[in-house]
Amino acid sequence: MAQNKKAVCLLSGGMDSSTLAYLAKDMGYDICALHTTYGQRTEKKEGQCAEKIAELLGAVEFAVVPLDYFSSFGGSSLTDKGLTVHDHDNSGKSTGDAVDLSRDNDQGGESIPNTYVPFRNANLLSIATSYAEAKGADAIFIGVQASDYSGYPDCRPEFIDAFQKVIDLGTSDDTDIKLITPFVNLNKTEILKKGFELGVPYEYTWSCYRDDHPACGSCDSCYFRLKAFKEAGRSDPIEYRNNLCD
Amino acid sequence: MAQNKKAVCLLSGGMDSSTLAYLAKDMGYDICALHTTYGQRTEKKEGQCAEKIAELLGAVEFAVVPLDYFSSFGGSSLTDKGLTVHDHDNSGKSTGDAVDLSRDNDQGGESIPNTYVPFRNANLLSIATSYAEAKGADAIFIGVQASDYSGYPDCRPEFIDAFQKVIDLGTSDDTDIKLITPFVNLNKTEILKKGFELGVPYEYTWSCYRDDHPACGSCDSCYFRLKAFKEAGRSDPIEYRNNLCD
Repeated sequence: MAQNKKAVCLLSGGMDSSTLAYLAKDMGYDICALHTTYGQRTEKKEGQCAEKIAELLGAVEFAVVPLDYFSSFGGSSLTDKGLTVHDHDNSGKSTGDAVDLSRDNDQGGESIPNTYVPFRNANLLSIATSYAEAKGADAIFIGVQASDYSGYPDCRPEFIDAFQKVIDLGTSDDTDIKLITPFVNLNKTEILKKGFELGVPYEYTWSCYRDDHPACGSCDSCYFRLKAFKEAGRSDPIEYRNNLCD
Repeated sequence: MAQNKKAVCLLSGGMDSSTLAYLAKDMGYDICALHTTYGQRTEKKEGQCAEKIAELLGAVEFAVVPLDYFSSFGGSSLTDKGLTVHDHDNSGKSTGDAVDLSRDNDQGGESIPNTYVPFRNANLLSIATSYAEAKGADAIFIGVQASDYSGYPDCRPEFIDAFQKVIDLGTSDDTDIKLITPFVNLNKTEILKKGFELGVPYEYTWSCYRDDHPACGSCDSCYFRLKAFKEAGRSDPIEYRNNLCD
């Protein structure tokens, strides 16, 4: 019997990456789920969700990689308790306050929100590539979206293309690991609709930046998740304290 | 007073990276030394050397990042006790046995030695970039050599160029972090001669892949270090069990 293709899937336990893992499975890949923690506020909850999703979709492996250095470097409100996770600003400005990398304060006027973890996706992709090369995987799935609400530079399609080149040059010549980004041209509502087709159990996913339970319902991540459910005409199965989309 | 330029220096504690850090300091940078551990056999000794070197050159920061996931992924004799660190083969074949990524055995006929840690440099550079962005550093120094004895794909100059592009695209638009590789066209003897000019205290550096103390003197890394000292007409201040270059 021919061996299945194998893919490393970056699985945070959120709505998008869980949908991504189900999609990769649907495309015929055996899934090596890779979950990373980086001292973010909701680390434990996200880990439980990622593990449950990996189990439910029949992943062949579930690897957890702690990246505590992100919190020691500082600079992001997701990992730095000295910075505030702001409520979503519904006034039309789609991002929160800027990161002040000099760390003097957490206010500013730039376009990158303070939930930005410097160069996070490159770190995740590097780990995923090491994992993929060690396991002989054919592909890496990452759920980046070009139209990402938050303006993170490491979600741009040009960034992904550049990283593919780094993979091609930096791995053994007899490997051929493809970076697959099926959501790069989709918005969150389209991703969610795809997920419902695939039967993704969203009750085991977590998106809130701020709290473990219930979700706050007012940070950027909750806001855009709730908005996607509303636009898809579905109700979100997880519990919220507030709902900015009501 | 104008603020000094700041650089993140990847400092393993070996001969090359210690020389690199002294060179960066000599070029006028304040040094944020970044040392990573990845479950390699000589982890403790390398860490002590790196810390001592950072202290002696007056680094403004010394960060240690544990990357234990490399050993959990497997595939390298540096981290996997089930594989053997081979003696240097002096017959003209400059590399050891190949990595068998399928892990069935540690023998093979490929050109990548089994000390290869899959995609390690991309991981190191990603961490260094996150650190540099969080600290507002201007540069990252890495001691890769084009003529690297070991055939690691992630030491190629094309790999470094591709990674620079990833940094440019994946970090905030108001940053300008340059990847600096002063040794890319030097061999180990030339690096060592440079180090003697700079006063690098080589007694506090460690290169052996196999042992903590004394150095084995027969692995690839010991062999090429000893060869460089011999060619530079100097004696190596650290202690060896054997010396393949005698």
